[in-house]
Amino acid sequence: MDRNKAISIVEPFLTEERFAHTLRVSDEAEKLADMYDVNASEMVLAAIFHDYAKQRTKNELERVIQQSYLPKDLLYFHHELWHGPAASILVEQEYGINNKQIKDAIRYHTTGKPHMSKFEMVLFVADYIEPGRDFPGVDNVRNAAQESLTLATWKALQQTIQFLSGKNREIYPDTFHAYNFYTRIKNGGF
Amino acid sequence: MDRNKAISIVEPFLTEERFAHTLRVSDEAEKLADMYDVNASEMVLAAIFHDYAKQRTKNELERVIQQSYLPKDLLYFHHELWHGPAASILVEQEYGINNKQIKDAIRYHTTGKPHMSKFEMVLFVADYIEPGRDFPGVDNVRNAAQESLTLATWKALQQTIQFLSGKNREIYPDTFHAYNFYTRIKNGGF
Repeated sequence: MDRNKAISIVEPFLTEERFAHTLRVSDEAEKLADMYDVNASEMVLAAIFHDYAKQRTKNELERVIQQSYLPKDLLYFHHELWHGPAASILVEQEYGINNKQIKDAIRYHTTGKPHMSKFEMVLFVADYIEPGRDFPGVDNVRNAAQESLTLATWKALQQTIQFLSGKNREIYPDTFHAYNFYTRIKNGGF
Repeated sequence: MDRNKAISIVEPFLTEERFAHTLRVSDEAEKLADMYDVNASEMVLAAIFHDYAKQRTKNELERVIQQSYLPKDLLYFHHELWHGPAASILVEQEYGINNKQIKDAIRYHTTGKPHMSKFEMVLFVADYIEPGRDFPGVDNVRNAAQESLTLATWKALQQTIQFLSGKNREIYPDTFHAYNFYTRIKNGGF
């Protein structure tokens, strides 16, 4: 599937604002893909579909999780975390996208996880730093991304842990395990 | 075992400073035990022994963990986390203290865990707020402890997550799961 076809598929499912974000993530992810030597055309597809399920209803996302191999503990956490995993199922069911690295990058783009591939890290970081993002600390990750993809991933995870715990919110286990994993890398423990 | 006997046992194993901290934790824990209706004489014993293993060598703590039922993943985390679990084994081996609530309160006093008993929470909170403690946020937990033991436990865990992630340090899974568990209680999710 090419970029234009993918765009024409996702656009009707997204608000104008969310669609603009999607295009910015795609551009950012393409740049990072070139910089870190991952397949840029596959990356663009992953980026265009990453929020494909973002505006589905809670009920629909719940149904996708219930009826797939996705871990059911997701349903005990905030529904903001459901759209990535659900999209990774829907893109295969509805458009035949069965490329595992695309599906996994979509699946983990919000939570992260330990041992991400470079491909997964590129989407995770691009979604965090695309030029429309404007929150405290985003420039730390933008700067880190110029230096090291792993460092940028760690910094985004650290700031996510700080943000969520500061807001009295639960933290999905994948995010926490990712934070520990990348902290150990950063501190030279692997 | 009475308080004086316990004190005479632990004193030789601790620096003067650590011994003074132990006595302050014991007094604080006794007050909280009365306030929250847990067995105060057992609590005093738990408090006096809580740092019993604090000044053992890393090698000795590692041996205790290796040769007991304690989870071996502790050895992959900071050795600061080893003294509580190790002490819970040593107090039984060396002094016959096999009271499960005393042993568990000692075991989890640094990390916390989900589903702590009131007894466990009293020692966890007392160690965090004893009057010698002076770090940002300690008064939040002191104030919370006047209102609710569960709230004080949550606040201490939240601040611990913030502190450790702010210092780029790994977080032991029990602490993270405890944070999620008490956050869910605080937010009315159970």
